[in-house]
Amino acid sequence: MVIKSISENVIRRLPKYMRILEELENKCQQKTSSAELGKLLGFTPSQVRQDFNSFGSFGQQGYGYDVAQLRIDIGEILGCGRGYKAVLIGVGQVGLSLMESFDFSVCGAELVAAFEVDPEKIGTEHRGVKVYDVAELSAFLEDHAIDFGVLAVPKAQAQACADQLFANGITAIWNFTNTDVTEPGSKIISENVHFSDSLCVLSYFIKAKQKNA
Amino acid sequence: MVIKSISENVIRRLPKYMRILEELENKCQQKTSSAELGKLLGFTPSQVRQDFNSFGSFGQQGYGYDVAQLRIDIGEILGCGRGYKAVLIGVGQVGLSLMESFDFSVCGAELVAAFEVDPEKIGTEHRGVKVYDVAELSAFLEDHAIDFGVLAVPKAQAQACADQLFANGITAIWNFTNTDVTEPGSKIISENVHFSDSLCVLSYFIKAKQKNA
Repeated sequence: MVIKSISENVIRRLPKYMRILEELENKCQQKTSSAELGKLLGFTPSQVRQDFNSFGSFGQQGYGYDVAQLRIDIGEILGCGRGYKAVLIGVGQVGLSLMESFDFSVCGAELVAAFEVDPEKIGTEHRGVKVYDVAELSAFLEDHAIDFGVLAVPKAQAQACADQLFANGITAIWNFTNTDVTEPGSKIISENVHFSDSLCVLSYFIKAKQKNA
Repeated sequence: MVIKSISENVIRRLPKYMRILEELENKCQQKTSSAELGKLLGFTPSQVRQDFNSFGSFGQQGYGYDVAQLRIDIGEILGCGRGYKAVLIGVGQVGLSLMESFDFSVCGAELVAAFEVDPEKIGTEHRGVKVYDVAELSAFLEDHAIDFGVLAVPKAQAQACADQLFANGITAIWNFTNTDVTEPGSKIISENVHFSDSLCVLSYFIKAKQKNA
């Protein structure tokens, strides 16, 4: 598969395709088309074809796409088979919700440990994942191959915790802190799930809709 | 202010500007420039100028931007002064984390009530917001002016809960269910905070970085 340079917008649409393909597979559907995928996702068929063309070529003109194969191919592009391992820093409400109810295996990832400062939380276990004292973080990272850190600490601690991850060679952060973390001079990956940014965007669209109503 | 047609990418950058401007204000800084904002956010100065030009014109060539005024202007564009009111459906881990620790007032919004099916949660109160029986939702929406619903129920219940909101005239959804909700034939607003999509995107960037390393 020849992969051209791909815009972030295309990347962000891929998980949506994955979800729809999973639904079609669950219904035992074997073939689909850009028209059907577009309809289900609210994209035009040409948008769908264009997205897939970014990755070389899936399917065959006039024959459509094999549902199972397309899902495998998109999963491969997203690195879903790589088994990336994560540590969580911060077992507050958001961290706990990730430990208790989020399915990291959705893209083949695994949460292997969590770290906290609160003595009442240290030593607890959630769905088989232990909460350690954050003082043990550096030693843990020396002993384990970890691919990314999940940051769910209060805003004020975000950068310091990120710095500790960076210092231990972790350069990818899944960031739930509502603030950005940086590492001057080096290329880190920070995927932000900032609830506050998202709420502001929702607010914009509500306002825009009211104005047009 | 003359607002041209604005791309979603620009809208999604506005909350980041807001956050940086807030930090500058907290440091009592009065003026800033596209160069400084770009540096702080990892954008080019021309990207910053182009973003702001989408909304007519802030600041004055050569004089830079007034920090406080720019923050007010961007907040106004995002509808932060509108006081949008929300109800939450689903007081699981994610819903509870929103009730317990998320600051809805970050863009002037307010969570006024939550709804659940679990009898143990119904009647509880979190930071002054009550949890009601979801059977009371329609009656509540008839009696209160609500601008958006926060959906934090399990995937399998997402569409049915959204349908109940739509049926009561709520057309904006802040969606944490990891699945999309739709309303055929009408224009709803759905701002998705799908953790699973975000993790897949992170996975892609980790893979891309490893390949380039």
